[in-house]
Amino acid sequence: MILDATEENKDWKHTDIILKFFEDVGVLRREAIIVIGGGVLLDLVGFCCSIYRRGIPYVKVPTTLLAIVDASVGVKVAANHFNRRNRIGAYYPPIATLLDKKFIATQDERNIVNGIAEIFKLAVIKDKELFELLEASAEQLITEKFQFGAVPVRVINSAITGMIEELAPNLWERKLDRCVDFGHSFSPIIEMQNIPNLQHGEAVVLDCLFSSCLSQVRGYIDMPTLQRIFKTANNLKLPTFHIDFCNFDLLKKSLSDTMKHRNGNQYLPVPVGIGNYKMLNDVTDDEIKASAELFEKLKNE
Amino acid sequence: MILDATEENKDWKHTDIILKFFEDVGVLRREAIIVIGGGVLLDLVGFCCSIYRRGIPYVKVPTTLLAIVDASVGVKVAANHFNRRNRIGAYYPPIATLLDKKFIATQDERNIVNGIAEIFKLAVIKDKELFELLEASAEQLITEKFQFGAVPVRVINSAITGMIEELAPNLWERKLDRCVDFGHSFSPIIEMQNIPNLQHGEAVVLDCLFSSCLSQVRGYIDMPTLQRIFKTANNLKLPTFHIDFCNFDLLKKSLSDTMKHRNGNQYLPVPVGIGNYKMLNDVTDDEIKASAELFEKLKNE
Repeated sequence: MILDATEENKDWKHTDIILKFFEDVGVLRREAIIVIGGGVLLDLVGFCCSIYRRGIPYVKVPTTLLAIVDASVGVKVAANHFNRRNRIGAYYPPIATLLDKKFIATQDERNIVNGIAEIFKLAVIKDKELFELLEASAEQLITEKFQFGAVPVRVINSAITGMIEELAPNLWERKLDRCVDFGHSFSPIIEMQNIPNLQHGEAVVLDCLFSSCLSQVRGYIDMPTLQRIFKTANNLKLPTFHIDFCNFDLLKKSLSDTMKHRNGNQYLPVPVGIGNYKMLNDVTDDEIKASAELFEKLKNE
Repeated sequence: MILDATEENKDWKHTDIILKFFEDVGVLRREAIIVIGGGVLLDLVGFCCSIYRRGIPYVKVPTTLLAIVDASVGVKVAANHFNRRNRIGAYYPPIATLLDKKFIATQDERNIVNGIAEIFKLAVIKDKELFELLEASAEQLITEKFQFGAVPVRVINSAITGMIEELAPNLWERKLDRCVDFGHSFSPIIEMQNIPNLQHGEAVVLDCLFSSCLSQVRGYIDMPTLQRIFKTANNLKLPTFHIDFCNFDLLKKSLSDTMKHRNGNQYLPVPVGIGNYKMLNDVTDDEIKASAELFEKLKNE
């Protein structure tokens, strides 16, 4: 089956289309589905596998940098619903994940940068060495598409290792204050509203930058460090500004929706310097406004 | 939310209606849903809870005898799809199940008998003492609606204990040869085709009786024991005949569909005497035909 796995198609209707395919083919209870594609496809087909006959086995083969460092590692599967990201889903590990970074060579620059976004997220919040690697090798990584030498291997391995460290002890998200949610607090609604112009990684980075501004407002990060984060994002060709991140009402709406998913808590991870974080749970409206102003100001520097 | 939880409504569309209700109400991630109703409702809402935000907690309050001895104990949740029983679902335990047999007093006779069906199933295949209790107290159980004295308590407790013994060591159905599938091999398609005339318990009992005939054909049960099973079913006001169980093509179609769910195996549990079973995996077409003939013959006795 070939599916056009865009974010718009990661929905209730396409869930049904995939389930119908399983039904028509007559998939047995223990017959493994092999999913070859990016994060959207892995999430969506994984979700279908999780509910068809109460779960059939599947194998993940991620074909994008983003999926190689992100969807490959997690056990989350999902579909968007009611115009909300991943509103329905499950925790459903594949029986195997096969990684081959040669796939990245088939991606265009924007999509590679989109994958770098999740690596950047992890680097800022928990891995200073990885941040310095990105800082030093930004151009090489993008132009050589992660194909040559030791640096891309180190970058991918560090990103995956960091993800596993965070996810493995908390597979079912019993703990809702998770540092990997850095970049995923203010962005979900903005991302959904800007499909297809804003890609997932792009939305995540904008949220990371906004949350870093928030950290500066709270005094957990100094101005030179904040500027260094912005500069590195810029060198990595990541977006460093979006007008919606200066819109107080939209930021509040997104946070309010995110808080339902965090059982009524903010649980906002923000960087403390580079490579460390603090979890905030008492951010005020004024601080959000101040962060939005700072974010807008940094765009002009 | 009030839902007309019939077997016809246990479908993809109503899954969406319930999810939409969660979304509109703004259910938090750790806010428990309380489901009060019969097996169809517990299965369907349980399934919605399993996928909404990758799982929100829920409490089961079964209000029918069938749900008290069956859905109450299992961790399976499901919806019908593509006109197949429970084609989509999950293993998703509630945080609590609250049992009160006073609910049974609100049921009419046919629905109580429908619940007795799953107890009868378990008795034939693994609990001779329970079978004798049903045999001795058939009339009392039905007319007094499980409300008075020690017998109904013993019956319900034995049924639940028996179910737990079978389900607990095999929660995720890694083992697909399960004796609790007695009564669930030839019936699913017949049940779906006869909605709403044939209730779940009724379909299960017919399958139990047909499978008992199969056992007699294979020589694992003698004629007097087979007749005793039919007589007890009759005394319990359970159905003891249905024309579809003499239709070879329909029996084959149902078995073939069931086998996909058992990964290509028959895994047919049949009684050996009363209170024991054997798992068959090599039943021939001729044996199915002979069982159908025997089933038809026993109707006239």
